Amino acid sequence: MARNLPEKKLKVHFEPDNIDIFVAPGENLLDVARAAGARIYASCGGQGTCGTCKMVIEKGEVETTRTRRVSDEEFAKGVRQACQSQVLTDLSVYIPVESRLEKAVLAHERKVAAETVATGWRYKPPLTKYYVELPPPTLEDQASDLSRLLRGLKQQCHLSNVGVDFDVVKDLASTMRKKDWKVTVTTLTRAAKTKDERRRPTVIGVEPGNTTQKHYSLAFDIGTTTVCGQLLDLNRGTVIASNLMYNGQIKYGADVISRINHSQKPNGLKQLQTAVVDTINHVIDELLKQGGVNVRHIGHVMLAGNTTMIEILLGINPQYIRLAPYTPVANFFPPVEARSLGIKVPRKAYLFTFPDVSSWVGGDIVSGAIGCGMHQRKALTLFIDIGTNGEIVIGNSDWMVTASCSAGPAFEGGGIRHGIIATEGAIQDFTIDAKTFEPKIGTIRGAKPKGICGSGLINTVAELLEAGVIGQNGKFNRDLPTKRVRPSEDGYEYVIAWAPETQIGRDIVITEIDIDNMMRAKAAMYAGYLTLSKSVGMDCCANLEQVIIAGAFGSSLNIEKSISIGLLPDLPRERFTFIGNGSLMGARLTSFSTDLLDDARRVAMMMTNIELSENVDFMNNFIAALFLPHTNTNEFPNVIKRLAARKQGITT
Amino acid sequence: MARNLPEKKLKVHFEPDNIDIFVAPGENLLDVARAAGARIYASCGGQGTCGTCKMVIEKGEVETTRTRRVSDEEFAKGVRQACQSQVLTDLSVYIPVESRLEKAVLAHERKVAAETVATGWRYKPPLTKYYVELPPPTLEDQASDLSRLLRGLKQQCHLSNVGVDFDVVKDLASTMRKKDWKVTVTTLTRAAKTKDERRRPTVIGVEPGNTTQKHYSLAFDIGTTTVCGQLLDLNRGTVIASNLMYNGQIKYGADVISRINHSQKPNGLKQLQTAVVDTINHVIDELLKQGGVNVRHIGHVMLAGNTTMIEILLGINPQYIRLAPYTPVANFFPPVEARSLGIKVPRKAYLFTFPDVSSWVGGDIVSGAIGCGMHQRKALTLFIDIGTNGEIVIGNSDWMVTASCSAGPAFEGGGIRHGIIATEGAIQDFTIDAKTFEPKIGTIRGAKPKGICGSGLINTVAELLEAGVIGQNGKFNRDLPTKRVRPSEDGYEYVIAWAPETQIGRDIVITEIDIDNMMRAKAAMYAGYLTLSKSVGMDCCANLEQVIIAGAFGSSLNIEKSISIGLLPDLPRERFTFIGNGSLMGARLTSFSTDLLDDARRVAMMMTNIELSENVDFMNNFIAALFLPHTNTNEFPNVIKRLAARKQGITT
Repeated sequence: MARNLPEKKLKVHFEPDNIDIFVAPGENLLDVARAAGARIYASCGGQGTCGTCKMVIEKGEVETTRTRRVSDEEFAKGVRQACQSQVLTDLSVYIPVESRLEKAVLAHERKVAAETVATGWRYKPPLTKYYVELPPPTLEDQASDLSRLLRGLKQQCHLSNVGVDFDVVKDLASTMRKKDWKVTVTTLTRAAKTKDERRRPTVIGVEPGNTTQKHYSLAFDIGTTTVCGQLLDLNRGTVIASNLMYNGQIKYGADVISRINHSQKPNGLKQLQTAVVDTINHVIDELLKQGGVNVRHIGHVMLAGNTTMIEILLGINPQYIRLAPYTPVANFFPPVEARSLGIKVPRKAYLFTFPDVSSWVGGDIVSGAIGCGMHQRKALTLFIDIGTNGEIVIGNSDWMVTASCSAGPAFEGGGIRHGIIATEGAIQDFTIDAKTFEPKIGTIRGAKPKGICGSGLINTVAELLEAGVIGQNGKFNRDLPTKRVRPSEDGYEYVIAWAPETQIGRDIVITEIDIDNMMRAKAAMYAGYLTLSKSVGMDCCANLEQVIIAGAFGSSLNIEKSISIGLLPDLPRERFTFIGNGSLMGARLTSFSTDLLDDARRVAMMMTNIELSENVDFMNNFIAALFLPHTNTNEFPNVIKRLAARKQGITT
Repeated sequence: MARNLPEKKLKVHFEPDNIDIFVAPGENLLDVARAAGARIYASCGGQGTCGTCKMVIEKGEVETTRTRRVSDEEFAKGVRQACQSQVLTDLSVYIPVESRLEKAVLAHERKVAAETVATGWRYKPPLTKYYVELPPPTLEDQASDLSRLLRGLKQQCHLSNVGVDFDVVKDLASTMRKKDWKVTVTTLTRAAKTKDERRRPTVIGVEPGNTTQKHYSLAFDIGTTTVCGQLLDLNRGTVIASNLMYNGQIKYGADVISRINHSQKPNGLKQLQTAVVDTINHVIDELLKQGGVNVRHIGHVMLAGNTTMIEILLGINPQYIRLAPYTPVANFFPPVEARSLGIKVPRKAYLFTFPDVSSWVGGDIVSGAIGCGMHQRKALTLFIDIGTNGEIVIGNSDWMVTASCSAGPAFEGGGIRHGIIATEGAIQDFTIDAKTFEPKIGTIRGAKPKGICGSGLINTVAELLEAGVIGQNGKFNRDLPTKRVRPSEDGYEYVIAWAPETQIGRDIVITEIDIDNMMRAKAAMYAGYLTLSKSVGMDCCANLEQVIIAGAFGSSLNIEKSISIGLLPDLPRERFTFIGNGSLMGARLTSFSTDLLDDARRVAMMMTNIELSENVDFMNNFIAALFLPHTNTNEFPNVIKRLAARKQGITT
């Protein structure tokens, strides 16, 4: 008779974390590393295409499908892509620094200039506290506890037409009697659907005594990469604490598509939902600790994110987002009790999410547009958020068009030989000596370099272009008197840092393939601006009166250099403004003003989404933009002038 | 070293159910019987005062506190009050028939005359189904699934301004695609707060395909004694099935006060809540079985009950209901998901409860008033529900006053030597031969008598009065030539049935104490009518144009005899109407019409409650009514005339 023998367990040891885990033979090494809690940045989600999950097998055997992401030299040293490897024996595995996800670096929000913040709103948070002192009941005044409370709110706070949550009623009798009929009432207001809709706040909490001084809420931006949160004091309209962490979903893939793919695996949606909720809870813990605030005084969570992040957070299957015709489940999600999602805040702290425009233009963009106040001004504004999916808004107070273009992961380090996300040791600044072609680099926090991040990539390419090291087609000038330009398996490459200067012990280079990937990314963005402009009857970008740059780049993006490579339109420097995390800014401001909450709903409905994925105009614009800065020199008059001058300087 | 020895377990065997249960020494026998699942009617909730939980100890020893509810003869036979007994040894216990709660007898609803049913309402159930066929999304029409659905509802069903439950959104994408973008939408409308409030239905369910033919809801009356339910077909406006069962809370006491007392014990509230939810679930099971309806097509539960029953069902501590100044927690409870209370209906089947007027005039009275349509007519109406707590409404379409008077449990068999609730074998009809003083009795379902129920008590006292067996003071005429009138420990008594004719093997009697208890009950009711009449400027009951009798008595109440004893006012027979279970009728009708749902809210707010508990006028009226029919002969001209005529007939 056959018996199920207990499966033989293999031990996998991870360094430098010194973690052991027991697994069955044949298990995938990336899954094993995740299960062991190792923080891995697997950018492609385990497809084998990005090469970011490389590990060194120090002892034992794995069975690996080798891809071209692993060089011969690496392979000889035991380097394998974890996602392509199956455990065959007991292992000892070293996870190198460049595969590790370290503590996120806060891209400090800039003090934003007054002209790029929403204005004219009344300070009137959707979450409001009222203190009332009620007369105790008598035989002559037998009003029910709830009627008494509502009467008090009407008489003492001029608040009528309120709804009441059932859970409030449940404990009302004892709550009201606890401090001698003195209570603090918390109400929450939703966005009005129409201008003339009478607001109907809902009583979501009643506490004994006067607790109006303890009045806090949370604002969140849920990014594909990072989760940023702020603890707000609603009495003072101030930020008490800010914090951010990598989105715990990163281990399932760096971009939205890998996440959607993972969500289709058995239990995948639940894993993703749990991962982001865990991250949110960690951020909340930190915020409360920093702010010295007790969690029970948190009454509300305002949250912005892209459509996929929001659907996953709410436990909704996001599968149709990536399937044509790319419809989201809803543009407006009703408020939900945050605790029902696993978020550790008190019962009846509702989670509001920003309305989205489409599957690829999410609530984070609406939030940013509201936060920067472009919906309040007549000035023709270009609002952009640069990332794997670049989102673009063009418009003003009267109209807005939006689009999302798939820029690819180059700006987040994906598809770039030594690309990494913006973390300690990432090369950000790059200048080159026009004579010797020797570089001068700056890294985040001044650490020894370990790779190159998105803004570093832009700066590097722009410098190489302006110095004539590469041509406008992105190919290296092979005749320069420097050892730094050399052939490689990815076309020619330039050595940014020699092995001994780095954390990783290998030369950090930028290759022609890297440059090509970056050019595709910037071309997608620029094609987006042009296609949207044309859809509203404008020929070029010259009419734009303001360009607002939101997103992870923050102020690390060099405007001049971004113009040089053709990522940003060739406009005077003063028309550009960075707002940093616009999504978080919008979430914060709407936490302070019901006016802006209403605006968000109205703006989301006003935004007309232009689908670029099968748009012929966009394809033509994209191909025209695959040049540095652009094939159409009229789009970049100043850059062309400068390049010509430099060239002259070099040749003379 | 001390050790906790396993506690010695005693075996208690119950007959005739043949159930064994093992308990610790010293446990209360009533608790043990309840734990064994024996259905006991412990009217006073275990205080020892009612004597309804008597059991016969056939083997073994109990320690008992003896009260006067157990006669010497009974005590000698091993009869003990279970609530007063502690288990000392293994036991064999017989539960006699009169202590058992048998299957409830349905007081059949009468076909109610048209003039006592609410009229003029539109057939427009709060729960509505809409079938829509939607165009599939394309790249030109990327509206979100929810927007597409709402657009379809607007275009095809002229339904706009709807809210959406989050749970609907969660599965929307797959639901809409399951049957090719054809779906059935279920919406629910709440009561409007004001006449001009624009209704805002909420989408609570979306199903693939056309399910409009499966459209059902439940209506319930939750009484202190019985739980009555109906399964409604909302497409046809018909009752598919009706059912009722004893409220499972009966084992914790017969009346509201015992229930409130029990709710204050550790875990008591939870026990009561579970008990009534179990009963509701049993009734639902029966209804679905009878109606051949699948539970997943139940979309809504409309429920009326007194304030205590509703607070307990909702899990709210009812303690302040019995403490002066008797304030309920709320007059309006927000709809709750029935499943959150443990009621076995689909998620998002909301439970609506009727608004209450005060702690002692509950939603069942509002429901009855709405159901009988007294709020629609100019006729001055007296609406009464006779029970342990008698509820009274006087008014018409313009105004209403209400009160509750504590009549005591006599009408439900409490405090009456052989009183039982209206169940099989209960004596209901009683006539007496004017010459021989021999009785003729009728019992429910014609079974051998086992006790006397409320309507039987009224009939008996009225007959004894009219036959001159008792005087207008309720005392027996001791000089009559019959063995049936005889002295007893409770004053004189009349033997209604000799032991051999009964189920219980003992004489069934009515005593002077029984008559006194009944007189107190009817006096409380009558004092209530007079006090309310006076509060609106009327001197007596003669102006009442209509008297509507709701409640458990149903049509078993004999109007003539009730007038004779002074329970009902002395008005022409045609002014009286029975509506049976008015509370259930109102719940049913509001399930069919949103107009009536709105009316319920308005009527509850219109009702002015008069507190009788410390009302001097009421006390005077009560004392004046402690006579048969009344000390003020002007109140009962016809009865007085008839009694005088009879007396003459007897004396001549």
